[in-house]
Amino acid sequence: MRVAVVGAGVSGLAATKCCLDEGLEPVCFERSQDIGGLWRYTEHIEAGRPSLYPSVISNTSKEMSAFSVFPFPEHFPVFLPNALLLDYLRRFAERFGLREHISFGTTVVSIRKHPEFATTGQWSVVTETGGKQTSHVFDAVMVCSGNFSEPFLPLQSFPGMERFRGQYFHSRQYKNPDMFQGKRVLVVGMGNSGVDIAVEASRVAAKVTISTTRGAWLLSRVFERGYPWDMILNTRFMTLIKTNLPAPLSWWLINYKANQWFNHENYGLQPDKSWLVREPLLNDDLPSYILTGRITIKPGVKEFKDNSVLFHNCPEEEPIDIVVFSTGYIISFPFLEESVVRVENKHASLYKYVFPTHLQKPTLAVLGLIRPFGAIMPVAEMQARWVSRVFKGLCQLPSQSVMEKEVNEKKKNQVKWFGLTFDEVLKTEWLVYLDTLASFIGAKPCVLGLLFTDPWLALTIFFGPCSPYQFRLGGPGRWFGLTFDEVLKTEWLVYLDTLASFIGAKPCVLGLLFTDPWLALTIFFGPCSPYQFRLGGPGRWLGARQAILTQWDRVLKPTRTRVPVGSSSPFPSLLIVVGFLLLLAAVIFGFQ
Amino acid sequence: MRVAVVGAGVSGLAATKCCLDEGLEPVCFERSQDIGGLWRYTEHIEAGRPSLYPSVISNTSKEMSAFSVFPFPEHFPVFLPNALLLDYLRRFAERFGLREHISFGTTVVSIRKHPEFATTGQWSVVTETGGKQTSHVFDAVMVCSGNFSEPFLPLQSFPGMERFRGQYFHSRQYKNPDMFQGKRVLVVGMGNSGVDIAVEASRVAAKVTISTTRGAWLLSRVFERGYPWDMILNTRFMTLIKTNLPAPLSWWLINYKANQWFNHENYGLQPDKSWLVREPLLNDDLPSYILTGRITIKPGVKEFKDNSVLFHNCPEEEPIDIVVFSTGYIISFPFLEESVVRVENKHASLYKYVFPTHLQKPTLAVLGLIRPFGAIMPVAEMQARWVSRVFKGLCQLPSQSVMEKEVNEKKKNQVKWFGLTFDEVLKTEWLVYLDTLASFIGAKPCVLGLLFTDPWLALTIFFGPCSPYQFRLGGPGRWFGLTFDEVLKTEWLVYLDTLASFIGAKPCVLGLLFTDPWLALTIFFGPCSPYQFRLGGPGRWLGARQAILTQWDRVLKPTRTRVPVGSSSPFPSLLIVVGFLLLLAAVIFGFQ
Repeated sequence: MRVAVVGAGVSGLAATKCCLDEGLEPVCFERSQDIGGLWRYTEHIEAGRPSLYPSVISNTSKEMSAFSVFPFPEHFPVFLPNALLLDYLRRFAERFGLREHISFGTTVVSIRKHPEFATTGQWSVVTETGGKQTSHVFDAVMVCSGNFSEPFLPLQSFPGMERFRGQYFHSRQYKNPDMFQGKRVLVVGMGNSGVDIAVEASRVAAKVTISTTRGAWLLSRVFERGYPWDMILNTRFMTLIKTNLPAPLSWWLINYKANQWFNHENYGLQPDKSWLVREPLLNDDLPSYILTGRITIKPGVKEFKDNSVLFHNCPEEEPIDIVVFSTGYIISFPFLEESVVRVENKHASLYKYVFPTHLQKPTLAVLGLIRPFGAIMPVAEMQARWVSRVFKGLCQLPSQSVMEKEVNEKKKNQVKWFGLTFDEVLKTEWLVYLDTLASFIGAKPCVLGLLFTDPWLALTIFFGPCSPYQFRLGGPGRWFGLTFDEVLKTEWLVYLDTLASFIGAKPCVLGLLFTDPWLALTIFFGPCSPYQFRLGGPGRWLGARQAILTQWDRVLKPTRTRVPVGSSSPFPSLLIVVGFLLLLAAVIFGFQ
Repeated sequence: MRVAVVGAGVSGLAATKCCLDEGLEPVCFERSQDIGGLWRYTEHIEAGRPSLYPSVISNTSKEMSAFSVFPFPEHFPVFLPNALLLDYLRRFAERFGLREHISFGTTVVSIRKHPEFATTGQWSVVTETGGKQTSHVFDAVMVCSGNFSEPFLPLQSFPGMERFRGQYFHSRQYKNPDMFQGKRVLVVGMGNSGVDIAVEASRVAAKVTISTTRGAWLLSRVFERGYPWDMILNTRFMTLIKTNLPAPLSWWLINYKANQWFNHENYGLQPDKSWLVREPLLNDDLPSYILTGRITIKPGVKEFKDNSVLFHNCPEEEPIDIVVFSTGYIISFPFLEESVVRVENKHASLYKYVFPTHLQKPTLAVLGLIRPFGAIMPVAEMQARWVSRVFKGLCQLPSQSVMEKEVNEKKKNQVKWFGLTFDEVLKTEWLVYLDTLASFIGAKPCVLGLLFTDPWLALTIFFGPCSPYQFRLGGPGRWFGLTFDEVLKTEWLVYLDTLASFIGAKPCVLGLLFTDPWLALTIFFGPCSPYQFRLGGPGRWLGARQAILTQWDRVLKPTRTRVPVGSSSPFPSLLIVVGFLLLLAAVIFGFQ
């Protein structure tokens, strides 16, 4: 069974390896001359490829970002500069002999259903190498082309942009801060790269301003007591708490935790609606740069003028020389027919973010098209493992209608909660944009109609604050007393567990408690590192147990480079105390 | 009464103003052409002047760093880049007409006792302007020449330094990181500038290593919930707690607080002896730079080789291209006879760090020769206020013997606890250095003698760890059961209060509680901003009350630049709750 893999980035490499693991025959097509995708830095920007700036550092820690059978080298730092992450991917490709399955310099031009698709599930794939096109037939396809290639730059959303005489560009163009020397810089949008660029610019610029309509919760890589944030937050124990707490309490907790580092309101970062917020932002530097006046936070842009900008609720014009639009990327699959994967409102109709719901045969999958609040590598790998087993017929998908129902439900929630990743920042009016989306799905409240049926409600909607409950009054997903649970259930760990259970690789913590209690406690209370999914099931790895028990050693190794006399790791004792104290509580809650 | 003021930096400006306030006639001699001292950045390094790098930002917040009758402008950031601090000093000089009292371009060549010093207390001062010397007679002298002009670079303390073929220089030479491009950099010593330089170097260098023998407790400007560290720690309430807690508990608390940000042991920063530590280090960036592998912490230097360095307890050689010695400065007064101010072991024999103890007349004072864990501006100002009143005869100093006794006691403690600021970092052997100092004061334990009188103790000293109690077995400051209190009593606020009480400007919190309870609570539980010392006594300022009550407004103004809908400062309500809950406890403890 031959599988076409499109792209040799993180997802493509995972896909290729998992195909090999399952005895499938992968052919990976990579348009550039090397592996690494997003993580391969090039000095010049190449069309159709992601573009990094040299200072990019991974947002997730090395133990949480590893492919599950291949931990990062011990001496690698805890968060990885892009060059080291690429180094790791090279080692991974080397170790599992992936390069020989990759066709470099080969662009996938089109993927169409083979004429006999309905019976064979095959795909006609056309590729181009050095200007020459070749046709192939594949039994299955894994799309791993990523989603950081096509910048989203909605200039028309900014009144007066056409008369602005300064320089402007999309954050994708950014390589180094030299051009900001002595200039007044405005960064529009507060994604991870936007804040990175603002921080770097502020070291040379005359003045740096970030404009954000919605604000953000900011986290630091240096989390509680200096441990990596994802190793503290992405544990089974924390996830159990997060997904079981009443939602308002969860939100309060997030609010409280985020404000422990610094009060977001005092720093101008407080999200307008604290519960309607996209994924938290990761940056270690921003608060101190705000406190020392190197970066100023401003509300959304109201209007551009010749050499300045006006912000909402701010009377003064701000003189600006350069604008950086950190407005995200467009998801697109130019080589696919639109009927195969539809992208609507930034949301693709994919079952579990992977399988198109409406194909007669499940022989095409999209990998890595998800941005959970956790490392992407284990997710892509888990997707690849699942997909390769579905291709082989070892796992069955539910019926088309079940899948569609679930996707539609997800989509509705997404549009409300997490789907607003890019556009909304740019729209000058939050409410206008919400209404637009709501009207797409028929959930925009009809104030005029309500005035006759429920005048008090109509007046409250019209004159009062626009709470999101307004979009649950009618249309699909109508609700008679909404809870916030849906939002929280899109948990990184829950998603991983779901996929793992599909292939029988989910660790049984309760079982382990009797056979290997130490391991069970480590799994339950410790970070959910990817090795956990190699303890059993297909692709079992005998080194997994050891890798789990030594995960903290590899984390501490690169920073404990100066050991004072008579010190020792506080972890085992801490684990024992916390472990046994919480054991009872855990058993009562029940292991998920 | 004419007063010579040497230097027009922070202390010199405060001295000049306080002289004017008291009706004295100050003549300030400044060797350069402008005010600002340390805070005036120049592109080129000038002999005999401090040298800043462009990225220096104040370590103390604007409300705590203000001169007490002159708050920083509201829109200034909370921590001040050096250019803005200089701007503030210029505004200060402008506002109080200080410039006309300053002779620019005038170097003080010598200050000698006038032949009739014993009766008049006068001083003969020789200055040089444009190569021409002038003699003056002054009734009193304030020495404000600072202590960051003469670098301390003890190359002989590093074995093998003579064969090292790379580049090396003192941190004073540093201006920008360009020279580190692609190099392997070693920073020796972990002072504030050392860490700043390491952080900046790591953005361009191939590799950056910091070598520290003792480690350090690191604090961030972004302290608890994002408030400035000095506004949280330097409150009367906290000081009351710190100075009254049993010492081991205090140290545990410091340890716990410092480790809340990140575990110092895991980052290689844990002080070897957690209680024998100099002032904490202030840096916002270091932990994340360590976690992302951009900076590595190593133990003290054992030996230099041709192109590399060996560290203690590390078998591997580390290749190094450039070494930056962040080894501090020498305190010196070249224009004074040694008999006037003796500097021994980095410690000058000055009563309350200000008055030489052995002069017949108290007509010479040294300002700003103290590094408390708090802002230096209010301290220099308070010293100047006290000094000018002593000069006028409004305040009396105690008898020479009382002053000498106190200074000697302080000196002994200093040598033990805080005096080791620079040297020890550099010595390859901590113990050798301690023994050297101990032998100066006759406190070095005589192991051979002990062997006959107390063999068990002698063996423990010889074969066991060298705890600091060993230096309390004999000699001056001999102790039969040491407490750690002395260390803690050198509190910033306690020192300020002591000086304030000398001139009758210490606020009476208990009295205020009845006449102005809100102000009393703000003073007691809030940060001890310098305006508190202008509420009463000489130099009373009618704006002081208002300045105290609005201090948080000025702190929040520069960062709350984007206010979400419906938000308000949480401070008043918090203050009320905390205030009234703790009122009873406070009254019981008794106001200091």
